[in-house]
Amino acid sequence: MIHPTAIVDTADLDVSTNVWAFAHILPGARIGKNVNIGDHVFVEGGASIGDNVTIKNAVCIWEGIRIDSDCFIGPRVMFTNDRNPRSPRGTLAHQRYADKQNWLMSTEVLQGCSIGAAAVICPGIRLGAYSMIGAGAVVTKDVPAYALVVGNPARQIGWVCCCGERLASFLQSDCPTCALTASQRQSILNT
Amino acid sequence: MIHPTAIVDTADLDVSTNVWAFAHILPGARIGKNVNIGDHVFVEGGASIGDNVTIKNAVCIWEGIRIDSDCFIGPRVMFTNDRNPRSPRGTLAHQRYADKQNWLMSTEVLQGCSIGAAAVICPGIRLGAYSMIGAGAVVTKDVPAYALVVGNPARQIGWVCCCGERLASFLQSDCPTCALTASQRQSILNT
Amino acid sequence: MIHPTAIVDTADLDVSTNVWAFAHILPGARIGKNVNIGDHVFVEGGASIGDNVTIKNAVCIWEGIRIDSDCFIGPRVMFTNDRNPRSPRGTLAHQRYADKQNWLMSTEVLQGCSIGAAAVICPGIRLGAYSMIGAGAVVTKDVPAYALVVGNPARQIGWVCCCGERLASFLQSDCPTCALTASQRQSILNT
Repeated sequence: MIHPTAIVDTADLDVSTNVWAFAHILPGARIGKNVNIGDHVFVEGGASIGDNVTIKNAVCIWEGIRIDSDCFIGPRVMFTNDRNPRSPRGTLAHQRYADKQNWLMSTEVLQGCSIGAAAVICPGIRLGAYSMIGAGAVVTKDVPAYALVVGNPARQIGWVCCCGERLASFLQSDCPTCALTASQRQSILNT
Repeated sequence: MIHPTAIVDTADLDVSTNVWAFAHILPGARIGKNVNIGDHVFVEGGASIGDNVTIKNAVCIWEGIRIDSDCFIGPRVMFTNDRNPRSPRGTLAHQRYADKQNWLMSTEVLQGCSIGAAAVICPGIRLGAYSMIGAGAVVTKDVPAYALVVGNPARQIGWVCCCGERLASFLQSDCPTCALTASQRQSILNT
Repeated sequence: MIHPTAIVDTADLDVSTNVWAFAHILPGARIGKNVNIGDHVFVEGGASIGDNVTIKNAVCIWEGIRIDSDCFIGPRVMFTNDRNPRSPRGTLAHQRYADKQNWLMSTEVLQGCSIGAAAVICPGIRLGAYSMIGAGAVVTKDVPAYALVVGNPARQIGWVCCCGERLASFLQSDCPTCALTASQRQSILNT
């Protein structure tokens, strides 16, 4: 399903992927199967999105951003790829933009990670598998697998399970909600 | 007035309500009279908006969000309705989304409340009547009537009048700007 | 270049300026030469934008906002122009909106300033020349020229050069990247 007002310029969009109203996907974006792309989303060429990802409304995904399968990208999550941005057409800084190696930084969002609404991910960050970023957080450094982080700058305040439930500790044997064990969670990281 | 580029799928929109460019209102959204809905706004089915509400640009209003009359919702204010979001199409978490009771939380924005630009409201929160949420605040707990809160997480730093003016205290008799008295403000809460 | 889905209602847009998809520019907006306006941007009448400015996606620029030449406005940067907003159509606050002098505040973004992704600029603020506002910052007071500020509320943590590079101090003679000297940076302020 592609909404009639969406603009999809990428060549190969799988039939199982939906794109909603006023979204814009540029040529060269890689998008997996069974992905949901909400209203007003923007995906730039060079962005990469895995299977079964949910991208809520108004997210921007730039070149240099890689999102693995099963992730949840909340509404208006903001990625970045330039640590010292200046106007590329400005008189004193445009030299910096002559070559992408001068400025383009990459972000990795590992399998199953959830990014809460309106969170900001600074450039060059790695968000661990099944980690959870709180709504409105500003993430300035890497986040471990299964970690829960909140605030500006984001700080870890706990752990979560694959199902999203808070855990008393990473080493706790059973999740009270989905019964996944700590060793099962560890196995997921190793595959 | 409905802008030609807006998509309004809800059945009964009052003629006194305006919807601006690139906005999208889904079936089942309830919207009152004399409401202004800005560019790039998204309103989901199950959302409820009262009379005389001003919704600035690019706000998303989800199922579970109830906004009472006379409220101001600043540009890009972000509501949320899921405390532990995971991709519903992900392989390990989709069971959680089989039933809305498993995840859907409600937010109440009481009469006359103002939410500043780009503020984030966490799930399950109640914003009191005529409270004021500062721009960029991340609200993680209930806000009392007439309270002013700012920051991430949001903390109360004062009180405001119905007209928006700061007050030295909630019990102060007269507002220096509109002359409303403390007992009048209290009466408004009781009606 | 004006994208076919963009709406440009202002009279005189220079041919060197680009406007991308789903952007909306209202009558009376002043926009300079060689400006780039990203997808989903909104520019209100009374806003003023200088030459060589880069405006990334989904920025809203209101009446009262003045952006000088060579600035970088990151994606989803949020400006504001009302310190005590209430719904203008609400029953108790609409008097406040009878006259713009009652509420409209101005913001000045001076030459070459960069505003990072999703930052929020409170009303009545002056951002100094070539200052840099970190991603996700909430700026509540004026920022000096060449200052780097981050956080909510934003606090200064350092200095930057015209090229964007961090500087050990404002008085440092040479930028390690572009070799601009401190006296050259000072001269730029005096022109």
